[in-house]
Amino acid sequence: MNTQFKIIAEDDKTGARITRWKTNHGTVETPFFMPVATKMAVKHLTSTDIKEIGIQAVIANSLVLELSRGSLYIEKRGGIHKLMNYDGTIFTDSGGFQMIRESFYEKTTPKGVVFRDPLNQKKSFLATPEWVMHVQGHIGSDVAMILDDHNAHTHTKEKHAEAVLQTYEWGKQCVHAKINPKQLLFGIIQGGSYLDLRKKSAKLMESLQFDGMALGGLATGEPIPVMKKVVSTVTKIIKKEQPRYLMGLGSPIEMINTIGMGIDCFDSTYPTQNARHNTLFTMQGKIDIAKGRYIHDDNPIEEDCDCYTCKNYTKAYVCHLAKSEEPIAMRLKTYHNIFFMKRLMNEAKLAIKENRYQKFEKEFARSFGKKKEQPQKEGKKQKNVSLV
Amino acid sequence: MNTQFKIIAEDDKTGARITRWKTNHGTVETPFFMPVATKMAVKHLTSTDIKEIGIQAVIANSLVLELSRGSLYIEKRGGIHKLMNYDGTIFTDSGGFQMIRESFYEKTTPKGVVFRDPLNQKKSFLATPEWVMHVQGHIGSDVAMILDDHNAHTHTKEKHAEAVLQTYEWGKQCVHAKINPKQLLFGIIQGGSYLDLRKKSAKLMESLQFDGMALGGLATGEPIPVMKKVVSTVTKIIKKEQPRYLMGLGSPIEMINTIGMGIDCFDSTYPTQNARHNTLFTMQGKIDIAKGRYIHDDNPIEEDCDCYTCKNYTKAYVCHLAKSEEPIAMRLKTYHNIFFMKRLMNEAKLAIKENRYQKFEKEFARSFGKKKEQPQKEGKKQKNVSLV
Repeated sequence: MNTQFKIIAEDDKTGARITRWKTNHGTVETPFFMPVATKMAVKHLTSTDIKEIGIQAVIANSLVLELSRGSLYIEKRGGIHKLMNYDGTIFTDSGGFQMIRESFYEKTTPKGVVFRDPLNQKKSFLATPEWVMHVQGHIGSDVAMILDDHNAHTHTKEKHAEAVLQTYEWGKQCVHAKINPKQLLFGIIQGGSYLDLRKKSAKLMESLQFDGMALGGLATGEPIPVMKKVVSTVTKIIKKEQPRYLMGLGSPIEMINTIGMGIDCFDSTYPTQNARHNTLFTMQGKIDIAKGRYIHDDNPIEEDCDCYTCKNYTKAYVCHLAKSEEPIAMRLKTYHNIFFMKRLMNEAKLAIKENRYQKFEKEFARSFGKKKEQPQKEGKKQKNVSLV
Repeated sequence: MNTQFKIIAEDDKTGARITRWKTNHGTVETPFFMPVATKMAVKHLTSTDIKEIGIQAVIANSLVLELSRGSLYIEKRGGIHKLMNYDGTIFTDSGGFQMIRESFYEKTTPKGVVFRDPLNQKKSFLATPEWVMHVQGHIGSDVAMILDDHNAHTHTKEKHAEAVLQTYEWGKQCVHAKINPKQLLFGIIQGGSYLDLRKKSAKLMESLQFDGMALGGLATGEPIPVMKKVVSTVTKIIKKEQPRYLMGLGSPIEMINTIGMGIDCFDSTYPTQNARHNTLFTMQGKIDIAKGRYIHDDNPIEEDCDCYTCKNYTKAYVCHLAKSEEPIAMRLKTYHNIFFMKRLMNEAKLAIKENRYQKFEKEFARSFGKKKEQPQKEGKKQKNVSLV
C-alpha cells in the first residue's frame, strides 16, 4: 500500500514538521499521540470517546491478543476495526517489547523469540518474523511492526550490537512474510544508548523497504538526555520522507522536544496511567486532583479546555469522585488527559504552521514544567500490566 | 411546594396508572425507576449518560453524603444538582435504611437513631428528625424522605409495632422540621410482613401532610409473595392522589407486578449490580455476557435495543471486554441495564395507555422469566457497600 507520504509544513529552526499519510483507514496528520488499547480497548474510554476527542490512531498489542483471544478469532469477527467499532487507524505492536517483560520472555534464538504464555506458564512458543506478520495480518491492523530484538537499556553493548543485527535479519524476513497487502509495515531501530549502534541500526533498517520507521527501546528508564541524544542522532540520518514513530514515549515535555527533532508519532500509557493515579495534565502543569484544596474549587480542571469533563464538571466534583473512588472518576480523569494529548498536538501543529516551534517548545516546557514534572520512568514497561 | 399531582391514565383491570407531578426540577411521569447515586454518582455512568437514557430521577443517600462530604459542603457548591451537573429530579434517602446495616447502626432512642460513622468507628451521633431534614435541605434534593424506624423483616412483631409508632412520631416531626419549602417530603410506611401493622402504619402516615407515600422495609430478603401481599394491601387503602414509591425494589418482574398494584416509582442497585456481575437484562430474560458462547456472537446484546452499547458493540466485543476485565466493560454493561429499566417503564406506560396491562404483565413474566430469574434477595441491603 502506498502511504502517499507528504510533508505539509516544516518549522525553519527545528526539525518539527506536519506530515500526512494514508493508512487503510484514512489519512492521518502528524504529529499525533496514540492511546494504548492493548486488548482492543483504551482503559476507561470507548471507541466513541476516542473518535469524539479526535484521536487519529490507537495501538493494540498483537502478542497479548493472540494469547488471550487469538488473531484468527479477531479475523472471523471482521477484524479489529469492526470488533472495536473504531474506524480510525490501528497500529499493532509485534510483541518485541514483551522481551523485557519477565512474565513473557524465555529466550532469544536466531529464528525468533521464545515466549511463555503468562496465563499458562507451561506453554512456550516461538515468535518468528513469519508468526508476528501472520498474527498482525489476521488482526487486521493498519500498521504492523516488525519483530525486533528488544533489550533493556541496561544490557551490555555487545548484547545491543547483536540485537541490531538480529532486528535487521528479522526485519528483512518480516517484509517477505507480510500477508496483508493493505497493511503498512514499520521498521524498528534498536541499539540502546549507543549512538554508533543506533546509527548502524538506522542504516540497516533504511536499506529495507518499510513504510515508516520507529525508534524502539527508548523511554524505558534511560536518562532523558540520553534518550534525546539518541533521537536527535537518528532523526538526522534517516530519510525525511517517511513517518517517524517514537515508541513508548508519552510524557508531554519530551514529546514536544522530540517533535522538534522530527518525530511524528508516539504511543504510551503515560496519560491514562497518570489519570488513574489522579495526575491530570493542564497547559500550566500537572495537578493532583485528589489533593484537598480542589474539593472547594468550582472551576473546571482547565479553564479553556473543551473536553467532556471540563465542559460538564468542576474540580470539586472530580475531586469528590476521586476521593470517593467512584468508578466514573476514572472515566472523567482519563478523558481529560487523552484530550490534553490531542490538544497539545494541535498546539504543536499550529506552532509549526506559524514557524515558531522553538518559542512554543520553550514556553511549553516553562509552563508545563512549572509544577516539577518527573521524568517518564519505565513508561513502556508499565504497559500491559495484566494480560487477562 | 404543590406537586400538581395528576393521574394521566389508569388501567381498567389492574391498579396500574400513569401519573404526572412536579418537583423542583420539572415534571416527572410515572412509572419510573431511579438508579442509585449514593455518593452523587451512578456507578459507571455520568450524569450525561443518565440524561441521554431518559432517566427522570436518581436517589442519593443523605446520611452517606453527610458523613463523607457534608451537606453544608454540598450547599456551598450550589447544591447537589449543580455539583453533579444533573437537572433531573433527585431524591435523598434519610438514612433510616442504614439502621439495618451493622457498620452504621448503634441504637434507636425515642429522639432518633444513634449511628456510627463507618469511617471513624469512635464517632457516634444522633440522627433526629430535625437532623435528617436539615441534612436533606442543605443537600438540596427535590424529594426528601422522613426518618423511619427501619427494622429487618426477621425482627419480631413487637419490634415492628414499635417501629410503626416511632416512624409516625418521627414523620410528624419531619413535617415540622422541613427547612426547604421547595423540597417535597415523602412518608414511609413500615410494619414488616404484618398486614395489620402495615395498615396501621398506612393510616397513621396518611394522617400527616406528605407529598408522597413510600413503602419501606421491603425487598430486603422477605419472600416475594409476602412482599406482594404487603404492597397490594397498602395500595388499596392509601389515597390514590399521591405518588407511591416502593423503596429498594428493582427486579423487573416484581416491578411490573407492583406497578399493577398501583406503585409509581422504584429505586434499587439491582440493575447496576447485575451489570457489574455480567448479568444483562433483555426483554427475553437475563443473559450472562461472560458466558463462552457469546464470544462468537456478532449481534448486539438485544436486537431491537437502542442503547449506546447495543447500537455500537456486539455481544462478542462486550463478552471479550468482560472476560478481559477491561474497565469499559462496566460502562457498557451498566448502560444497557439502566436503559433496559427505562425501556421497560416505557413498555409499561404503553400497556397502561392501551388498557392491556394485565396481558402485558403476563407476557413479560413469561418472556423475562424464561431464563429463571432469581428472586431479588437483600436488594437494598447491598446498597452503599462501601462508604468512602
